[in-house]
Amino acid sequence: MTKKKHKPTILITNDDGVTAPGIAALVEVAKQYGEVVVVAPDTPQSGMGHAITLGRPLRLNPVKLFGDIEAYQCSGTPVDCVKLAVDKVLGKKPDFCFSGINHGSNASINIIYSGTMSAAMEASFEGIPAAGFSFLDFSFNADFSLPQQVANEVIHHMVHDILPKQALYNVNIPKIDLDDFKGIKLCRQAEAKWNENFLERKDPMGKKYYWLTGEFVNTDKGKDTDIWALDHNYASVVPIQHDLTNHDLLKKIKL
Amino acid sequence: MTKKKHKPTILITNDDGVTAPGIAALVEVAKQYGEVVVVAPDTPQSGMGHAITLGRPLRLNPVKLFGDIEAYQCSGTPVDCVKLAVDKVLGKKPDFCFSGINHGSNASINIIYSGTMSAAMEASFEGIPAAGFSFLDFSFNADFSLPQQVANEVIHHMVHDILPKQALYNVNIPKIDLDDFKGIKLCRQAEAKWNENFLERKDPMGKKYYWLTGEFVNTDKGKDTDIWALDHNYASVVPIQHDLTNHDLLKKIKL
Repeated sequence: MTKKKHKPTILITNDDGVTAPGIAALVEVAKQYGEVVVVAPDTPQSGMGHAITLGRPLRLNPVKLFGDIEAYQCSGTPVDCVKLAVDKVLGKKPDFCFSGINHGSNASINIIYSGTMSAAMEASFEGIPAAGFSFLDFSFNADFSLPQQVANEVIHHMVHDILPKQALYNVNIPKIDLDDFKGIKLCRQAEAKWNENFLERKDPMGKKYYWLTGEFVNTDKGKDTDIWALDHNYASVVPIQHDLTNHDLLKKIKL
Repeated sequence: MTKKKHKPTILITNDDGVTAPGIAALVEVAKQYGEVVVVAPDTPQSGMGHAITLGRPLRLNPVKLFGDIEAYQCSGTPVDCVKLAVDKVLGKKPDFCFSGINHGSNASINIIYSGTMSAAMEASFEGIPAAGFSFLDFSFNADFSLPQQVANEVIHHMVHDILPKQALYNVNIPKIDLDDFKGIKLCRQAEAKWNENFLERKDPMGKKYYWLTGEFVNTDKGKDTDIWALDHNYASVVPIQHDLTNHDLLKKIKL
C-alpha cells in the first residue's frame, strides 16, 4: 500500500477580473497540480497595485465559470481577494497562490503598479509560495499556449522543488511565435520607468480632464534583466522580496 | 554681491486627502525650505498602495487651503497626484517631494499598503529625492508638534546634505510626549505582517458582507528595525528602494 500523497490547495486570482480569458488559462494549468479554488475581482483592477479596501465592506459571491472548480467573485482589489480567500473562503493558508495570467506586461517597474503581482506578494507575506504570470499581449483573443507552457514549467518547479516559504516569482511571457521561444530565464528587475504624458481633454461643459498615458523607458543596459530576456524571446522569472530597505544607503547616510 | 541661491521647488502630497490636518502641518514645515506646491487627493485614499487610475480620467481643481501656497485637489490616487503634478501642474520635476504627514503608521510592511509612501516612491522613480512622514496617531485633533520637529530635521538633512537622486525615506513618528522623545534613528524595515480577521455582517436583505480588520504581528526581534525604534520612543527613518529583486534567492534557485 502506498501512502496517499497530500494534494496541494492552490488559490488562483488575478487583476483583470474573474471573467478574463487569462485566469481560465491559468486554472487549466494549475488544476493538474492540486485542488484549485478561485477568488478574483468582479471588475477589472489593472493598476491597483497593493491597494486594499478600507472605506467600504466587501462582497463575495460564488460563480460557475470553471467547470467543477470552486470559484468566487469579490468586489474588492486583488489583494483583498487573497485576504478574503485565506480568512473566509479557505479558512486556512493554501499551499500555493498563482495570479494571472495577466493581459499585459508586469516586468521591471510595472510590478509596483500591478494588481496581479501585488496579489501574489500578499500571499507571500503569509508564507504561501506564490507567482504572478503576465503575458505581453493585451488582446482578449490572445493565444495562451505559450504562457500556459511557461506557467506549467514554473508551477512544476514550485510544487516539486524545495523552496523558501516566501518564494515569490514575477513571471513574464513574450508575445512571440512558439517556434521562436528560447526558454525561461532567471533575471533581476530592470531599472526602468514611465515618462508620463497626460492627455488633456475638455468635457461638454468646457472643463478639463486628464487621461494617464506614458512611455516606458528602459535605462538598464544589463543582459541579466527581465526586459532584456523578454526582448530576446525568453520568458523572464524574477524572484521578488518585500523588504524595501535600501541597505546600501542605510550604511552610507547619517542623520 | 552674493550669488542668489536657487530656491528649491517642493511638491507636497498625501493620502488622507487635501483637507487632512497632517498635510497642513507638513506644508508649514516645508515652506521654510523652498517654493511649495500642493497636489493631493480630493478624498481619503488610505490603503491605496501604488494604485494608479487607468479606467477613468482625472480631474484637477485649485483649492485655497494653505494661505498663498499654490494647491490643487485631484480626483485620483496619491500616485496619480505625483504624476499629474510633474507633468501638468509644475511641467517639470520638483527638487523634492514630501508626502504626509499621514494619520497612522506606515512602518514595516505597512509601507506596501500605504498611499503616502507610494506617492513618495513614485517621485523617487523620477529621480526626485522624497520622503513620506507618518504619525502614529489617527486622531483628527492630533498634536503635530513632534511630527513637525522630526519632519523639519529630516527635510533639513535632505535639502543640505548630498544625497543620491533616488533617496527615499520612510519616516514614522511615535505618539508620545515631547519630553519622552529620544531622537531620530536610522533603521531597516521590520519583518512583520497583518493577520486578517474579516468582520462578517448581514445587510437588510440578509446578504453577507465583510469588513477588513486585522492584527499587526511583528515577528522581527531585531533592535535595528523601525518597529523597535518606535516602541522605544524614537522616530524611525528607513531608506527605501524600488528594486524588488530577491538577489539572494536569485543566486540559489535553478529553473
